[in-house]
Amino acid sequence: MEKVTVFGAGSWGTALSYVLAQNGHDLLLWTHRQDQSDEINQHSNERYLKGVRLPDSLKATANLDEAVAHADIFVLAVPTKAIREVSRDIRERMTKKGLFVHVSKGIEPDSLKRISEMIREEIPADLIEEVVILSGPSHAEEVVQEHPTTVTAACENTQAANRVQDLFMNSYFRVYTNTDVIGVEIGGALKNIIALAVGITDGLGYGDNAKAAIMTRGLAEIARLGVKMGATPLTFSGLSGVGDLIVTCTSVHSRNWRAGNMLGKGKNVEEVLDEMGMVVEGIRTTKAAHQLAAEYKVPMPITEALYAVLFEGVKPENAVEELMGRMKKNEMEDLIDLL
Amino acid sequence: MEKVTVFGAGSWGTALSYVLAQNGHDLLLWTHRQDQSDEINQHSNERYLKGVRLPDSLKATANLDEAVAHADIFVLAVPTKAIREVSRDIRERMTKKGLFVHVSKGIEPDSLKRISEMIREEIPADLIEEVVILSGPSHAEEVVQEHPTTVTAACENTQAANRVQDLFMNSYFRVYTNTDVIGVEIGGALKNIIALAVGITDGLGYGDNAKAAIMTRGLAEIARLGVKMGATPLTFSGLSGVGDLIVTCTSVHSRNWRAGNMLGKGKNVEEVLDEMGMVVEGIRTTKAAHQLAAEYKVPMPITEALYAVLFEGVKPENAVEELMGRMKKNEMEDLIDLL
Repeated sequence: MEKVTVFGAGSWGTALSYVLAQNGHDLLLWTHRQDQSDEINQHSNERYLKGVRLPDSLKATANLDEAVAHADIFVLAVPTKAIREVSRDIRERMTKKGLFVHVSKGIEPDSLKRISEMIREEIPADLIEEVVILSGPSHAEEVVQEHPTTVTAACENTQAANRVQDLFMNSYFRVYTNTDVIGVEIGGALKNIIALAVGITDGLGYGDNAKAAIMTRGLAEIARLGVKMGATPLTFSGLSGVGDLIVTCTSVHSRNWRAGNMLGKGKNVEEVLDEMGMVVEGIRTTKAAHQLAAEYKVPMPITEALYAVLFEGVKPENAVEELMGRMKKNEMEDLIDLL
Repeated sequence: MEKVTVFGAGSWGTALSYVLAQNGHDLLLWTHRQDQSDEINQHSNERYLKGVRLPDSLKATANLDEAVAHADIFVLAVPTKAIREVSRDIRERMTKKGLFVHVSKGIEPDSLKRISEMIREEIPADLIEEVVILSGPSHAEEVVQEHPTTVTAACENTQAANRVQDLFMNSYFRVYTNTDVIGVEIGGALKNIIALAVGITDGLGYGDNAKAAIMTRGLAEIARLGVKMGATPLTFSGLSGVGDLIVTCTSVHSRNWRAGNMLGKGKNVEEVLDEMGMVVEGIRTTKAAHQLAAEYKVPMPITEALYAVLFEGVKPENAVEELMGRMKKNEMEDLIDLL
């Protein structure tokens, strides 16, 4: 039995707490909202997991001191742009080393840092046992229905990855390990760009053939960048790569897909953001990926087409048309950079 | 302008004829049914492409002599189990060399031959200029709506692949070339197994997480076998691999998915075949892949689980459960064979 605190009571943080509580760990779920903490202690979190009864052993708190004092393992399940702030909040209260697990997806624009890098910048090395990434094709709603789900726990330190594997593993939640931190983080972050692009082509009414083409070529350009950054190419063929891409691009529940879909139907970026009323991670990630492509000198035609739509006012139909025309004629020329 | 005959007036053969006629080639579409030929010459093929008006220049015939005499390029768009018979019918009437293009997906059980191998067995080498495979994520219905579609033309002979590329390429139908014939044929055939498996998990009500897991691990085992057979691993990351897999597994129109879905809902194989009233290619391919896995000594857990359901009376829910339990704990161990 491990002592764990999950930070962030959105749908994914709550679903992971459900798994951990069920696995018999001493689990605390932190949220900054007292009313949400009270609701969870009454066994529900209606806004994020409608109709689900949470296990009795799933306890919540809105008290940060208590949340940090409780655990040896800290699971960060907050939006990417809150990672630094929450890391600092935890650090200020830590008195001994902790194992960090993060489940967020994104790249910080301008600094171009991955999430594990952001955590390591905010928390001194002598307080970090390890940082492990948990990533894969996993709708929270299906996890709490105990439908079969598979994810990857990534860390260069195999022992730490194994500890996280043991933490979450049960009959319906299967955890694999992987040592390729860069590949898992880049795949998870950049798949949101492809989800936006696929949402656009769906919004334009282009159909499944175009969707499959964008996903296939999109995965290839993500892998191309990832490999230049130090990732293992095979990671992009795994659960955190193509697996997560499939679940994100083929689900109408994906926030990024929905944003893209509205763009494809003719709304502009401001209207989309207004209507969504929340962060669309893929938009921030597109900016970061555009910067990474320049820094690593990697051709990323789908990312660039999306950047043009999001930040340069290019019409989606023109961007897609140019993309189709620009694609190389030999499929291998495009993929070969991966080896 | 090329002289082309397409053999087989199902939805895909008709859609490819639509593209070829529109591209200005001298095109003839052969069907063994006189009434279908007459209907196509009146510009429609309602059973296979409902509501579509075919181009005036798309001519059909039910006369094999005429069909063979017409062309230098023969496009075979018939079901896999008709490949040998149609090849023989063509051979008997050929008077000069021809370029063969095939668009079928499958492996012959017992002989374990790929389709290009079957064609080369039935037609003497001195009558074959080349055999080129056309494969990729492409619903026929979307092609005739002129939605953007991308496919791969594969041949070891680059010149022949380029000729087929030029033949089909236009603004909405983009053709890439690839020299990896084995990879393109194996990917196209075995993806039908994964579509069946995904249909089963959908039928069992397991959701998108399980679906993405099966697709990801399924692609890995297909690639593992393909590489042992001589394919290039990257091909499985391309349009004829992951691209076609995505379109087949996420469309409710896929015959293989539908068959799997019925199995997952509790029907037995005989009932499914009765209800479908047509060939389910994935069932034949599962048998062939099971034999290939043994011959090449490649672990293919998803194929084996499906084989157990189809041919050994194992219940789908038990097969899935065993599959989840059997999966390896290190993701890379499973993928690493690809390099």
